[in-house]
Amino acid sequence: MATEEIKELPKSWAMIGGDGPQSYTQNSSYQKGVVDASKEMVTEGIKDKLDFKSLAFDSSNDTFRIADFGCSVGPNTFFAVENIIKAVEHKHHAQFNNSPPLAFQVFFNDLPTNDFNALFKTLHSNRKYFAAGLPGTFYGRLLPKSTLHFAYSSYCLQWLSKVPKEVVDSKSPAWNKGSIQCDGLKKEVTKAYSAQFQIDMNTFLNARAQEIVGGGLMVIIMAGLPDGIIMSQAGVGMYYELLGSCLADMAKLGEISEEKVDSFNLPLYYSSSTEIEEIIKVNGNFSIEIMDSLSHQIWQTSKESNIEVSVSGGRAVFQGLLEEHFASEAAEKIFEHFAKKLADNFSIFDGAAYEHIDHFILLKRHFN
Amino acid sequence: MATEEIKELPKSWAMIGGDGPQSYTQNSSYQKGVVDASKEMVTEGIKDKLDFKSLAFDSSNDTFRIADFGCSVGPNTFFAVENIIKAVEHKHHAQFNNSPPLAFQVFFNDLPTNDFNALFKTLHSNRKYFAAGLPGTFYGRLLPKSTLHFAYSSYCLQWLSKVPKEVVDSKSPAWNKGSIQCDGLKKEVTKAYSAQFQIDMNTFLNARAQEIVGGGLMVIIMAGLPDGIIMSQAGVGMYYELLGSCLADMAKLGEISEEKVDSFNLPLYYSSSTEIEEIIKVNGNFSIEIMDSLSHQIWQTSKESNIEVSVSGGRAVFQGLLEEHFASEAAEKIFEHFAKKLADNFSIFDGAAYEHIDHFILLKRHFN
Repeated sequence: MATEEIKELPKSWAMIGGDGPQSYTQNSSYQKGVVDASKEMVTEGIKDKLDFKSLAFDSSNDTFRIADFGCSVGPNTFFAVENIIKAVEHKHHAQFNNSPPLAFQVFFNDLPTNDFNALFKTLHSNRKYFAAGLPGTFYGRLLPKSTLHFAYSSYCLQWLSKVPKEVVDSKSPAWNKGSIQCDGLKKEVTKAYSAQFQIDMNTFLNARAQEIVGGGLMVIIMAGLPDGIIMSQAGVGMYYELLGSCLADMAKLGEISEEKVDSFNLPLYYSSSTEIEEIIKVNGNFSIEIMDSLSHQIWQTSKESNIEVSVSGGRAVFQGLLEEHFASEAAEKIFEHFAKKLADNFSIFDGAAYEHIDHFILLKRHFN
Repeated sequence: MATEEIKELPKSWAMIGGDGPQSYTQNSSYQKGVVDASKEMVTEGIKDKLDFKSLAFDSSNDTFRIADFGCSVGPNTFFAVENIIKAVEHKHHAQFNNSPPLAFQVFFNDLPTNDFNALFKTLHSNRKYFAAGLPGTFYGRLLPKSTLHFAYSSYCLQWLSKVPKEVVDSKSPAWNKGSIQCDGLKKEVTKAYSAQFQIDMNTFLNARAQEIVGGGLMVIIMAGLPDGIIMSQAGVGMYYELLGSCLADMAKLGEISEEKVDSFNLPLYYSSSTEIEEIIKVNGNFSIEIMDSLSHQIWQTSKESNIEVSVSGGRAVFQGLLEEHFASEAAEKIFEHFAKKLADNFSIFDGAAYEHIDHFILLKRHFN
């Protein structure tokens, strides 16, 4: 039996569902920006690197299978998938001019706590593919052996499977008191986060290696840092630091306990391209075909809309996490305070906001 | 491109989600009874009729694919699927003593408005199969060509894709004024319902014929009537008639309009085995391997618990339908009145309650 035991991440990791004003659907314009920027790169990557002549493609079955690992609730996943299908159709037509068109099956993966109901209700009725939902953590097996031709994961793999336990352990040298993130200022903390990232990436790569056919492609887009830059120097790190300082403020006001604040860290790790490259090479299941960085405008034009976008974007992503740790009412107060503090301190981002990057990685599965 | 345009049924067809006191999960003991009664028949059917030696099974891929069409929210679907897997494993082991074990992939299908979130959250973490959700009407294609080895549909195909329009058209000879169901008393009404059932069954069989490999099996369990019995003679028909009389009562009280009552009919058709047999034979894609009837105790022991089960069971299944047609508040009043009327009239079921049956049909996909 090929299925491994399936570990689930805590509920709080999933984005806010539905399509209300605080939902991920309405507050993922930054992530949509990533999709747009990478769209052309995906199209070019498929054109250059997908080879139907060497792909382990079952000629008796004309179905090309795609999976989006960490799809959330749309609509970004639909844009990404449609773009992939278009590029694959083009390449197939270019290589086999007269063969019948491909059929497509798309697996939408996210945690079982993701709002699949919202996702399914917004599937386009005139879509050109068979759609399936795939509930479960991508840090584990989700599909049968050698059944996938194209894997895609956008803006998810910077999320660790868990916060490394040392960083919230007051007895550990890696205790991260006074910070809610891997800010890069304390060697032991960075080491603990980096070790967890290595474990998680390896688990992910091993699971996908089982699922993807020889010659199949995988596109990974994930948040990262340029080589030599640490989180506390990057705009996004300052943003998390400001959120952390709000927790400290709330503790001083007695709204939440200091202990609770000390035990809260973000399960996020922004890696460098050197670090990822090393992990992929050591893993050994995939060749790196393209490794690039995307950098793009995070902030909108006016300061007011920037602040609004920053707060609502943060809320859509982090609300579940904060509610689980501090309870709903406290989370609400934290966001209110955060909005005010962000407005008062927005100038800190002026020079730094562009300093984090998104890795764009295109891998090809080795033939066994 | 093999995907046909996907028609969706109205929202109201789906069962009540979640696991609250009015949910389908908590009120599907009747359906669970069907699963239990058919469990042994499925096991025996797989043992006798599944033949791995003639099954179009890709030896390079060890994955056996199962789909439950109309799975609702569990837990019945999980029991059914686990039973199928156990029987398939036994048969595989019996035919290929020393071969490596099969992997299983299970597709859970229901309408996009089904509560997939609830379904996914209750998937067993130690399950022995890869799980996927398949949103969409089963009166249409859902999976790629020739990828399914075992299809299952329990207690769903008596639901039509729509109410035949003639029966709610005051200008048609098939206008079903004074009844909310195909009670079998008016020839034109029966003809309209029967024609819709034929169309729907054919659409279902044609879609599954594309998806199921040669030699693959399909188990259909559905509500029906013994040959020669009409709905108004069966306990279940009397139950719907009583529900219909509640609508008439509410109209007299001015709570809902008479017009609204006249335009309401249940999209349900209870067929005879002769009728189904004919449809399957004319369709021509499957051979009938087993055709049997299940009859089992519907009502619990005491009258009080019977009434409770009847009302809450009806609510779980029909609430969406009534709310869509009459608005929530009216639907609530209808159920309150129904509970009272059922208690006052429960003796009408004494002789008739056992007269409807469930068809158990095991089909095998022809080799092309």
